Amino acid sequence: MSTSVTCIAPVNIAIIKYWGKRDDDLILPINDSISVTLSTDHLRTKTTITAGPEISKNVLRLNGVEESFENPRIQRCLQEVKRIAKASGKCSKPEMLEWNVHVESENNFPTAAGLASSAAGYACFVYTLATLYGVESEELSGIARMGSGSACRSLHSGYVQWARGERADGSDSLAIQLAPASAWPDMHVLILVVSDRKKATASTHGMATSVKTSDLLKHRASVCVPERVKLVQKAIAEKDFDTFGRIAMKDSNQFHAICLDTYPPCFYLNDVSRSIIRMVDQINNLAEPNLAPVKVAYSFDAGPNACLFLLEKDVPEVSAIVRRVFPFTGTSAEEYYKGIPNDEAAMAAIPPTVLDSFAPEEPNLLRYIIHTKVGEGPKRVD
Amino acid sequence: MSTSVTCIAPVNIAIIKYWGKRDDDLILPINDSISVTLSTDHLRTKTTITAGPEISKNVLRLNGVEESFENPRIQRCLQEVKRIAKASGKCSKPEMLEWNVHVESENNFPTAAGLASSAAGYACFVYTLATLYGVESEELSGIARMGSGSACRSLHSGYVQWARGERADGSDSLAIQLAPASAWPDMHVLILVVSDRKKATASTHGMATSVKTSDLLKHRASVCVPERVKLVQKAIAEKDFDTFGRIAMKDSNQFHAICLDTYPPCFYLNDVSRSIIRMVDQINNLAEPNLAPVKVAYSFDAGPNACLFLLEKDVPEVSAIVRRVFPFTGTSAEEYYKGIPNDEAAMAAIPPTVLDSFAPEEPNLLRYIIHTKVGEGPKRVD
Repeated sequence: MSTSVTCIAPVNIAIIKYWGKRDDDLILPINDSISVTLSTDHLRTKTTITAGPEISKNVLRLNGVEESFENPRIQRCLQEVKRIAKASGKCSKPEMLEWNVHVESENNFPTAAGLASSAAGYACFVYTLATLYGVESEELSGIARMGSGSACRSLHSGYVQWARGERADGSDSLAIQLAPASAWPDMHVLILVVSDRKKATASTHGMATSVKTSDLLKHRASVCVPERVKLVQKAIAEKDFDTFGRIAMKDSNQFHAICLDTYPPCFYLNDVSRSIIRMVDQINNLAEPNLAPVKVAYSFDAGPNACLFLLEKDVPEVSAIVRRVFPFTGTSAEEYYKGIPNDEAAMAAIPPTVLDSFAPEEPNLLRYIIHTKVGEGPKRVD
Repeated sequence: MSTSVTCIAPVNIAIIKYWGKRDDDLILPINDSISVTLSTDHLRTKTTITAGPEISKNVLRLNGVEESFENPRIQRCLQEVKRIAKASGKCSKPEMLEWNVHVESENNFPTAAGLASSAAGYACFVYTLATLYGVESEELSGIARMGSGSACRSLHSGYVQWARGERADGSDSLAIQLAPASAWPDMHVLILVVSDRKKATASTHGMATSVKTSDLLKHRASVCVPERVKLVQKAIAEKDFDTFGRIAMKDSNQFHAICLDTYPPCFYLNDVSRSIIRMVDQINNLAEPNLAPVKVAYSFDAGPNACLFLLEKDVPEVSAIVRRVFPFTGTSAEEYYKGIPNDEAAMAAIPPTVLDSFAPEEPNLLRYIIHTKVGEGPKRVD
């Protein structure tokens, strides 16, 4: 008699970036990172795990395609959750721990497009396993971390910090919540998914090469990041968007600077990403050049897509400018504008003089735009 | 009775980059830089300066267009050369120092395309003035430096180092020759001029913003560059192309990393630049991945154009690969392949298996290619 559990887990976007491991095996980072968990309403991994005595071997299917279960990171996550389940004695059916599992996982967004799919994927895998085996433990974030470093951050809602930790065994390198999503309810997120024909360097390989070859990375990890972590913690606590946004942009820039200082360099931003950065800079300088508080901030992970942070009051203006700069000539607006619907009336009220100051790029440089918010952690959905 | 002198001066390409001033007025850099002077056979500024009692005002024409003589950098160079001429007492016609001048300057390559036109321009201006007034002085490189920092390096042939200097008045921030062009006669240069529709940040503004906002720049200037300067000096002395090329690439990457770590970031590389970097990396890994010595090295200044360094023996192979990766469909090969003619026979002998491993980009991403060598300093040509 098999048992089945289905859970979802969110994507998270780092504001202070994780780049570089101090331990490749345990996936321990060289610096703290801070992230924002995005709403599972629009971006999520959904995983169903079935355990049963009749299942003859472990099977993993991602987005309908069978993948090898021999992946050591998958193996490790499975073994670690089972270990805790055994130790806790709380598993309602202890024999289940001896059964094989069938794992079916799917994302509602493109995999490996630089949208943190592995973070959501491993967080969901570990959370679903833990739910199946009746495990509730502080250690789950450490287990998810051994699947994919940033997965540990996807186990929490809202604003999350993953500590570097000091211990060699990684037991203090865990993610904790800094503030729930509800603490800053007017924070919105626009994800601009960029068309890109180049396959980027896988982030695992990229960060290993950076640790080996970038002369600037150590300085970033030991000097720049600790200062920024404090500033972002304070900005979140005080809902200081200007500081939050400014540090987010500077840290995104510095992360991509380190990628470029790597030999051979790894590139994640492309010409469209650079146009987005220029547009954001222009928006922030609309009022008083170099003096106005930040209205919208970009952050780019290991891919060309932009994650824009902004407050609810600025969504219509920024959305209208994005629409002006990145025109879309396709027929299906529903396929292009995803997530929270546009407030067309508020967008129509943006003065044309504002919009006219932005030069349009050639059409269809973006694949689509997802409008979302900060959101909740993983949960059971069956 | 007016007097006229015509001189030419070369472009130089930095191997260890100059980025950031410790004194904006005197143009004193925060780190040493090392450059290669390119042959005036293919890239040069030519300047004619006429002084005469009948000339009613100072006039400056660049590439046929009149520019303001009120530019403080132009004024300063003129005053400083006159000051030295007066002090030396060697000017054959001292009354000339009271006359106005007519300056006619032209480049045989696109101005402000990231091909160091201001370096060649100010070097030529100062050298021509000095020739007109009969000045021969070690101080000329310091005067050219006050026109455009890197201009001081264009006063020497071959391999040149511009010292940061320690003194507040800049008197020890001068360029010296490390080796003449003849010391490494098989060093060749291919300049890939990239089509770019975006106007880049002017380098004066970009470096000032980097000094103010990049948290990584100080570490670069104080820790990374001094180590690299020693390695490149040694590589030039020993004609060690592997080290020379590797450090050139790493320093180009680090310079562009600093530009990205600047807020707002400045971008000089575009998607075509990135394709060139990938091509170079692939060429260097043709023999033994990660082990073979460097065969060709890139360096990018404040623009998207690549300067490739390579030894004479590798010119046919690299040229054939460049032709394969960046196809040209225009009709005028003469307009596309400039400088030293291609050795078509040697290129035809490159095995197709080598070429076939490179994927072609879309046609006409490059505007043209200049094949040149390391060359001589400024000289009088009339």
